[in-house]
Amino acid sequence: MTALVGVIMGSKSDWSTLSHTADMLEQLGIPYEVKVVSAHRTPDLLFQYAEEAADRGIEVIIAGAGGAAHLPGMCAAKTHLPVLGVPVQSSMLSGVDSLLSIVQMPAGVPVATLAIGKAGAINAALLSASILGGKHPQFSKALQEFRTQQTDNVLDNPDPRQA
Amino acid sequence: MTALVGVIMGSKSDWSTLSHTADMLEQLGIPYEVKVVSAHRTPDLLFQYAEEAADRGIEVIIAGAGGAAHLPGMCAAKTHLPVLGVPVQSSMLSGVDSLLSIVQMPAGVPVATLAIGKAGAINAALLSASILGGKHPQFSKALQEFRTQQTDNVLDNPDPRQA
Amino acid sequence: MTALVGVIMGSKSDWSTLSHTADMLEQLGIPYEVKVVSAHRTPDLLFQYAEEAADRGIEVIIAGAGGAAHLPGMCAAKTHLPVLGVPVQSSMLSGVDSLLSIVQMPAGVPVATLAIGKAGAINAALLSASILGGKHPQFSKALQEFRTQQTDNVLDNPDPRQA
Amino acid sequence: MTALVGVIMGSKSDWSTLSHTADMLEQLGIPYEVKVVSAHRTPDLLFQYAEEAADRGIEVIIAGAGGAAHLPGMCAAKTHLPVLGVPVQSSMLSGVDSLLSIVQMPAGVPVATLAIGKAGAINAALLSASILGGKHPQFSKALQEFRTQQTDNVLDNPDPRQA
Amino acid sequence: MTALVGVIMGSKSDWSTLSHTADMLEQLGIPYEVKVVSAHRTPDLLFQYAEEAADRGIEVIIAGAGGAAHLPGMCAAKTHLPVLGVPVQSSMLSGVDSLLSIVQMPAGVPVATLAIGKAGAINAALLSASILGGKHPQFSKALQEFRTQQTDNVLDNPDPRQA
Amino acid sequence: MTALVGVIMGSKSDWSTLSHTADMLEQLGIPYEVKVVSAHRTPDLLFQYAEEAADRGIEVIIAGAGGAAHLPGMCAAKTHLPVLGVPVQSSMLSGVDSLLSIVQMPAGVPVATLAIGKAGAINAALLSASILGGKHPQFSKALQEFRTQQTDNVLDNPDPRQA
Amino acid sequence: MTALVGVIMGSKSDWSTLSHTADMLEQLGIPYEVKVVSAHRTPDLLFQYAEEAADRGIEVIIAGAGGAAHLPGMCAAKTHLPVLGVPVQSSMLSGVDSLLSIVQMPAGVPVATLAIGKAGAINAALLSASILGGKHPQFSKALQEFRTQQTDNVLDNPDPRQA
Amino acid sequence: MTALVGVIMGSKSDWSTLSHTADMLEQLGIPYEVKVVSAHRTPDLLFQYAEEAADRGIEVIIAGAGGAAHLPGMCAAKTHLPVLGVPVQSSMLSGVDSLLSIVQMPAGVPVATLAIGKAGAINAALLSASILGGKHPQFSKALQEFRTQQTDNVLDNPDPRQA
Repeated sequence: MTALVGVIMGSKSDWSTLSHTADMLEQLGIPYEVKVVSAHRTPDLLFQYAEEAADRGIEVIIAGAGGAAHLPGMCAAKTHLPVLGVPVQSSMLSGVDSLLSIVQMPAGVPVATLAIGKAGAINAALLSASILGGKHPQFSKALQEFRTQQTDNVLDNPDPRQA
Repeated sequence: MTALVGVIMGSKSDWSTLSHTADMLEQLGIPYEVKVVSAHRTPDLLFQYAEEAADRGIEVIIAGAGGAAHLPGMCAAKTHLPVLGVPVQSSMLSGVDSLLSIVQMPAGVPVATLAIGKAGAINAALLSASILGGKHPQFSKALQEFRTQQTDNVLDNPDPRQA
Repeated sequence: MTALVGVIMGSKSDWSTLSHTADMLEQLGIPYEVKVVSAHRTPDLLFQYAEEAADRGIEVIIAGAGGAAHLPGMCAAKTHLPVLGVPVQSSMLSGVDSLLSIVQMPAGVPVATLAIGKAGAINAALLSASILGGKHPQFSKALQEFRTQQTDNVLDNPDPRQA
Repeated sequence: MTALVGVIMGSKSDWSTLSHTADMLEQLGIPYEVKVVSAHRTPDLLFQYAEEAADRGIEVIIAGAGGAAHLPGMCAAKTHLPVLGVPVQSSMLSGVDSLLSIVQMPAGVPVATLAIGKAGAINAALLSASILGGKHPQFSKALQEFRTQQTDNVLDNPDPRQA
Repeated sequence: MTALVGVIMGSKSDWSTLSHTADMLEQLGIPYEVKVVSAHRTPDLLFQYAEEAADRGIEVIIAGAGGAAHLPGMCAAKTHLPVLGVPVQSSMLSGVDSLLSIVQMPAGVPVATLAIGKAGAINAALLSASILGGKHPQFSKALQEFRTQQTDNVLDNPDPRQA
Repeated sequence: MTALVGVIMGSKSDWSTLSHTADMLEQLGIPYEVKVVSAHRTPDLLFQYAEEAADRGIEVIIAGAGGAAHLPGMCAAKTHLPVLGVPVQSSMLSGVDSLLSIVQMPAGVPVATLAIGKAGAINAALLSASILGGKHPQFSKALQEFRTQQTDNVLDNPDPRQA
Repeated sequence: MTALVGVIMGSKSDWSTLSHTADMLEQLGIPYEVKVVSAHRTPDLLFQYAEEAADRGIEVIIAGAGGAAHLPGMCAAKTHLPVLGVPVQSSMLSGVDSLLSIVQMPAGVPVATLAIGKAGAINAALLSASILGGKHPQFSKALQEFRTQQTDNVLDNPDPRQA
Repeated sequence: MTALVGVIMGSKSDWSTLSHTADMLEQLGIPYEVKVVSAHRTPDLLFQYAEEAADRGIEVIIAGAGGAAHLPGMCAAKTHLPVLGVPVQSSMLSGVDSLLSIVQMPAGVPVATLAIGKAGAINAALLSASILGGKHPQFSKALQEFRTQQTDNVLDNPDPRQA
């Protein structure tokens, strides 16, 4: 099946964060693709990627970047697809710069921003399942199964003193 | 037509922010409903709202709140629909508390977070059009028309010295 | 003796912080219970826990959570018992997000917030002794003995150069 | 009836914040006293106040201060009563300095910290009702009535577009 | 004379800041042009502007933007000319988001970042004079005259009590 | 009597803050001088001022500046006299930049830093009285009288409800 | 010779920071004493220490503390001697809480605040030499010798590539 | 060939950051010199360096410093050459203090500020190539070659899963 979610990131070093997105998409059975696309080092590739994504069958784009993170916002500027932004933890400012660079978009071009780092990377996959679920009920079902299992895991292990 | 987007907010004072969401949804022709639902003052109503939303035909929930803003995250905990969070500017900390309370969700339950205040409120409507557009092409078309018009507005008025 | 203090936390990983609460409650002789209750993964359990706590004899609830920490505030929304919030240090933002998510509650539903991390976890136990002490003088006495001993420890070891 | 709650503040200018505490205590029927006690300008008075409070019948102390806010913590150092801290909004840093100066107490001496400003001032009164309620059921009852009314106010006015 | 400095900004509302850049460029006698170019609303125009600037004779680009400010960094990604970034004060976060979005560029693509707001706008003009001065001595001379006059203004008015 | 305290500031606009220093020095009877000395616009004057201050009889230097506030630190680099730094509230960042630029001096060259704005300006005068008091007992006496009066003012007006 | 500088700290764990103060005082030949005095665990000792310091011959007090650091400010509230505050790096917030708790003193009671951590600890000693130097010329001389040597060390080793 | 870029830093410990500047300058073939010049420990050397730089043939100065980083700004106060500031990561505040101390220069004296740490150090070299390129086309050419190679590196390695 052709990819429905495109996962892009600003550099290879972001893979240690975005691999959690890929793992969760796989767990949910959502077809996806991953690619390094740098807003600053390959701006033309970014524009091409964003412009062609919808026509290639991509329905959701997940973009992760750190520091002055322009990838999600510039991607959103070139597509009408939902763009989900994952702020990667930066080495200096713990991802505060990444978060503000992604979330504080001006009126007119939104980026759906998730938490900084691994939690946000996992949640980007879950949110894409939620979004895709409107049109593709099987992903909504996969999401609800994941959520039920997640709840059961807590309910079955209520004692924090047990490993 | 029945509401596709549910817009909820923690208190009436948030309406000065969330009214921008309503205005944009109207401009895009997306049917919606608005309601005050307080996570802290009406927790049972919040749970009921989130639980029943999907069955009532709601496809996207937009939740705005300020300070220790628990409304979007708790709503997301009770539904598999996409929940979009709008951090309302708080009187003391300019919305930094609202933003962190909404965006820093743990792995497992995402909230699609927008910018603080008016820009985020407008963008929540645009993002919901983008999300609904997958299943309802007319909203994707309305979004693309808005975006084209927005671009033309800048292109037609390139001189900042002219009012 | 039945538990007077209920110690809940959002995930098992919070136990490394909240175990300090348990240790101090034990040292003070206050009967308590501990349980993992996740606001986002087990919202119904949280509501049930908070609603039933007073009837089960719980007089103080201590809730620890990190990141977008909604556990203390949502617990407070469902009980009239005093809820003490312990911000757990988050991996990305050092607990600033946890602190603001817990302390910045809107007017109407308070959470008694302690310091981030271990110090706050210990102090939550001491504060519960202080609160319980109004009705149960033995805990006030235990607290005062702890405080006297703590003072003596400093007075007996005034030289920082000695280990 | 003699005062059960002592409300102190660092300067007269804090009264615009702490008056909300007094108003809510009155609404709840809790006897209280108010006094200006400055940690830095009247340190001896502060120590005397904290030392004598319990013997005078005070059961909860609410202390509000701004900037390098030492009043709540130093008060807590001199009493075993619960001390509730209200960070007053500072003119320069919006109360971030007040908040950190109050909440980040070291292990051994807790301050139950509320939100910055008016919300925290109101909540300090509600929290004191919750604490006093363990021993004095009438305040627990008053608190529950306030909470029910507060919930009804939201439920009765669900439409944010109506003033 | 053809423009040597291109002053671009993300929206017309940034003109109240960037007009100070224009005023100072005029005072220094540096030929310039001004234009609204939005990274998010007119991304193609931005790329075209940045790509063609050098060939049109532009030697320095000054880009001002606020919030998630991507204009300076994306401009720098498409040109080898020096790009000077002016963080415009944002309505919510005082320009901290603007500053971090502009200055925290990854290795490989620099933006010369100035102070937030009016001071940065003025300084962008002075810095461009300094940069252009290497090749065009007349602008170095104009800069030095401005600097001398600025120093004399302080030396001639040493008494702060006189208006 | 010749000036013992030199009060310098980066620009005339700082006078609205530093005038509080002058007022308090006058109240304490400490001879002083005031002068605009800009680190960035008149660096040579700054060096001359700092180098000659001790020989001219100055015993304490109070330096106020805002933003990237280099005046106190550079003054301290050129004299062995105690330098007291007053962070002036900046228009964009509320004086956080001023504070960090002044207080975070590297090991080897200290600046005695006071609070941001008016409080810090007043306290710089009081601290200089405290420092001068070691050698000039009359200023220690004046300081103690001020402190006693200040304490009495609080003790005489304990009721915050009275204007 | 009797101690001229009193170095106090909130807990033994602060010694790893304040030992740098002691080392530098020794290097400058300034007689000093060191003692653990906790504002929160031994408030009465703190008041006694501050009250008696001047009569015991102490001329400068250096107080180091972390987190909600009340030691320097409360010490200053009880003496007219100059109090120098050293913000100790806190485990959670890197000393930002320590810094704000110490520096943001209200008008009326100053604390001369140094940098966070080791640099501030060393500088507190140098500042005390500068302060004592007004009355005791030998410490001014020792300070100037240290400063000259420090300058020479840089001048003699201008090449950063050499160890 | 004589140095065109002067790289100065506040202490030898900054070399671990600024060595990245030197490496990149070498890669670009730009002649440079490196020197330790401390604003606080060798202020006269700093003034001499800045005053003489232009006459010695230096065309761009790169200054790196941490904490209360005054080196770039004071250097800029004494020369009309472009001064590029690199905020070195500070041990306590992750370079936020360094960044604000460098970037928030008042109107009249600009510093072209780069990112905190290694990325900023590399980018300072690239920016100097861009600035020098106006007068010396070979450095513009070297920069463009570096940029092309950098882009190709990303394009040739699009798969983040491959090392």
